[in-house]
Amino acid sequence: MKAKKPQESVTIMTELVLPNDTNPLHNLRGGKVLHWMDIAAAISAQKHAEQVVVTAAVDNVSFENPIREGDVVTIKAQVTRAFNTSMETFIEVWAENIPQKRKVKSNEAFYTFVALDYNGRPAQVPEIKPETEDEKTRFDGAKRRRELRLVLAGRMKPNEAKELKSLFTSE
Amino acid sequence: MKAKKPQESVTIMTELVLPNDTNPLHNLRGGKVLHWMDIAAAISAQKHAEQVVVTAAVDNVSFENPIREGDVVTIKAQVTRAFNTSMETFIEVWAENIPQKRKVKSNEAFYTFVALDYNGRPAQVPEIKPETEDEKTRFDGAKRRRELRLVLAGRMKPNEAKELKSLFTSE
Amino acid sequence: MKAKKPQESVTIMTELVLPNDTNPLHNLRGGKVLHWMDIAAAISAQKHAEQVVVTAAVDNVSFENPIREGDVVTIKAQVTRAFNTSMETFIEVWAENIPQKRKVKSNEAFYTFVALDYNGRPAQVPEIKPETEDEKTRFDGAKRRRELRLVLAGRMKPNEAKELKSLFTSE
Amino acid sequence: MKAKKPQESVTIMTELVLPNDTNPLHNLRGGKVLHWMDIAAAISAQKHAEQVVVTAAVDNVSFENPIREGDVVTIKAQVTRAFNTSMETFIEVWAENIPQKRKVKSNEAFYTFVALDYNGRPAQVPEIKPETEDEKTRFDGAKRRRELRLVLAGRMKPNEAKELKSLFTSE
Amino acid sequence: MKAKKPQESVTIMTELVLPNDTNPLHNLRGGKVLHWMDIAAAISAQKHAEQVVVTAAVDNVSFENPIREGDVVTIKAQVTRAFNTSMETFIEVWAENIPQKRKVKSNEAFYTFVALDYNGRPAQVPEIKPETEDEKTRFDGAKRRRELRLVLAGRMKPNEAKELKSLFTSE
Amino acid sequence: MKAKKPQESVTIMTELVLPNDTNPLHNLRGGKVLHWMDIAAAISAQKHAEQVVVTAAVDNVSFENPIREGDVVTIKAQVTRAFNTSMETFIEVWAENIPQKRKVKSNEAFYTFVALDYNGRPAQVPEIKPETEDEKTRFDGAKRRRELRLVLAGRMKPNEAKELKSLFTSE
Repeated sequence: MKAKKPQESVTIMTELVLPNDTNPLHNLRGGKVLHWMDIAAAISAQKHAEQVVVTAAVDNVSFENPIREGDVVTIKAQVTRAFNTSMETFIEVWAENIPQKRKVKSNEAFYTFVALDYNGRPAQVPEIKPETEDEKTRFDGAKRRRELRLVLAGRMKPNEAKELKSLFTSE
Repeated sequence: MKAKKPQESVTIMTELVLPNDTNPLHNLRGGKVLHWMDIAAAISAQKHAEQVVVTAAVDNVSFENPIREGDVVTIKAQVTRAFNTSMETFIEVWAENIPQKRKVKSNEAFYTFVALDYNGRPAQVPEIKPETEDEKTRFDGAKRRRELRLVLAGRMKPNEAKELKSLFTSE
Repeated sequence: MKAKKPQESVTIMTELVLPNDTNPLHNLRGGKVLHWMDIAAAISAQKHAEQVVVTAAVDNVSFENPIREGDVVTIKAQVTRAFNTSMETFIEVWAENIPQKRKVKSNEAFYTFVALDYNGRPAQVPEIKPETEDEKTRFDGAKRRRELRLVLAGRMKPNEAKELKSLFTSE
Repeated sequence: MKAKKPQESVTIMTELVLPNDTNPLHNLRGGKVLHWMDIAAAISAQKHAEQVVVTAAVDNVSFENPIREGDVVTIKAQVTRAFNTSMETFIEVWAENIPQKRKVKSNEAFYTFVALDYNGRPAQVPEIKPETEDEKTRFDGAKRRRELRLVLAGRMKPNEAKELKSLFTSE
Repeated sequence: MKAKKPQESVTIMTELVLPNDTNPLHNLRGGKVLHWMDIAAAISAQKHAEQVVVTAAVDNVSFENPIREGDVVTIKAQVTRAFNTSMETFIEVWAENIPQKRKVKSNEAFYTFVALDYNGRPAQVPEIKPETEDEKTRFDGAKRRRELRLVLAGRMKPNEAKELKSLFTSE
Repeated sequence: MKAKKPQESVTIMTELVLPNDTNPLHNLRGGKVLHWMDIAAAISAQKHAEQVVVTAAVDNVSFENPIREGDVVTIKAQVTRAFNTSMETFIEVWAENIPQKRKVKSNEAFYTFVALDYNGRPAQVPEIKPETEDEKTRFDGAKRRRELRLVLAGRMKPNEAKELKSLFTSE
């Protein structure tokens, strides 16, 4: 199986913030952003795996800049690293009000997907070969984030999470 | 401001998994679950705060049991702890196929919300007074989860996260 | 087939009133309430029957208190009585504006469902054993409401509807 | 205020039964039919009143012929009679599978609406002048159905419902 | 195969302009009108063909009068002419604000459909026999519009389009 | 007002074909493609104009390759030429089934938009300066397509449409 570049999985989505997607303050609901990111990231993981994929985990997401009704939302997703049958994806979200010339980065997130074959069993996916500096940094960080996911899901003991541990114990 | 019980904020939602919510394997998309949990949890935080609330953070969520098209999804959300103007909520998701007598717990998650006044500024919320054993355990864990959120959002240095640190360094 | 309690079929739904659900006065359309009640009641009948169910009849519903855009709507449905292959369900609807501390009961209704087996033929359902005073009152009234349904559907002559008749002829 | 003809309020809607509108047997949910009928009937009442209208009551509806996914649904609504500020509408629903040359009448219903002025207060509407035999029959029956609505809503005592009473006591 | 009248394929749709269908000026988006016209015209072509149909072409559509949020949109579609396995349909769109007594014709368009048999292969459809003056004019114009469609799709050379050519070269 | 490049207005949308978007053959409805193209093209025109825009015209669109349920649809829109207050946009649509490694270009279209100021009056937009060969070809063709639009909308006499005329009269 030939390794692939992060660039090959890049997926761009554009969405309009419609009235039904907003809260009483006319800001886009956080849950809707999480939903759109899941779709963009799943397509990106599917491009890498060339298989059907299902969401396995969503890492901590924080919401800082509100997105307004009527804004144009652009979402960019790409695969950062593959682990046998799973893939971590990195997702960035920008919100833009074009007539007001306002554009902000509103969110970043990591979602993990598992590739499945036609019988619904986990399927092997190609490795990732990062090229740019940013891609390499995300590739390296993927291992630490994976440990955190396993610890939080109760599938790894905290003191076995070597990369994480060094983070919390370094002075 | 009088402290309130977690029980006062309990919110129950029931949803049907419709064809448009599923992936090509006819399983509910992870992003849709994240969206529904956000709505249930926001209503529960609103009940506690008696103010408008907005999503501030979503903690790591992992997806293990697939939910099928046609299943009945039940979501229960409640506030676990309040921190001045923010509230952590705990959300549980069950999926059920009634004619086939199959019911599984599919997800658990913690979402954090901020209460806003009519000018959109953070507003003070009542404290929480846990009653049951489970409520007390979640109340105590909230501090550790908050440290993790701050560390992951880059607003606290790992070595200042005392509760987390002890977790990773204990033998 | 063992009789079941109304409590076993209780189903609670929570919905937000979104802009697309409202009329030009920004009140929730009656038809949307009827739709939500149908979903909640169908799930409740399904819990009782442990079979697929289809809507057979909706009794007269009147709309008195308008529900506003942005309100939280809570719907509670439960089975009141079973008649061989059909079940009557009782549905209550509350509308709530939490920041304004306003909560009203907006509707009550009775919907009837028929249970179907895998060939789409009517299937026997368990009997109901009411426990509380309210459950007993609704259980008793179910017979009179059923007569009215049959008369209105042209399947019973008015003067054969004994329970109804006594109602209109008593002084 | 000049009386108007039922014909002037006729409203025709055509809808496709989409996957999300159906139950696990791929039949259109009863609640969705109730919702569509409400929209068609509200537009018809609006045409008669030339005012904004809100749903006041739905009379008993029974569901006999299932409507299938992919069917074309045609809904015809018209005002049958006006009572000061309220209007009764009559709604007919047909379901059709064109390639299979199957067309059935699936439902009939009466919905009542109240006209509102710009301050949200009930507003006077024109009288109806029925023309055809069917229109006259529905015009005459409207009084009896109105009594039933008032009795069922607890706003008229059964023994004051003269038209209804004669129905149940005639031999 | 017996020829049919345009009248037999007439399809009427009524839609409400909801908030999610509008642009930031609260006018109905052009794309939504194109979507509704496609559904109405497809049902009308299906009535003529008594087969499943798929959209083959949309002719130039221009948008002149804006349609407002809350307006009632009425769409009327009918077949104008049949060509072996394809049908041209004519669609008219009116927008109406009933309380304000404003009604305008907002659009006209021609959509072409192909009938398919159960194997997805083009299927023969009945001829059209126009009756009224308008129907005859549209029947005659259909040939010229078809030439334009073929030229624009690159399937006919401009100088072979006899009807069109005469249009541009006549003094 | 400084001329802008077509590249500055490029907008990419990714959509999944969901069950509710398809016809009984499980192919995406033509009307839904027209709707998505309108949204992508409107955002692209908005980027060029930095003003609110409304759809003014859609040129002839033909549908050749069916798009299947579950496919990933990618839409790319960009401005080709500006005419005072209006802009022509070019839109390309690809459909892709990733696990089956099938990707086809399914549609091309030209939509025209008008820029509006805050009072809803047409507003001047920057000129376009094409750079690549394709951009220049589309820039040149825009004049001829504009003539056709005006002729078809009845706002220009065919024999005044010089560019078009030469097309039909050249040997």
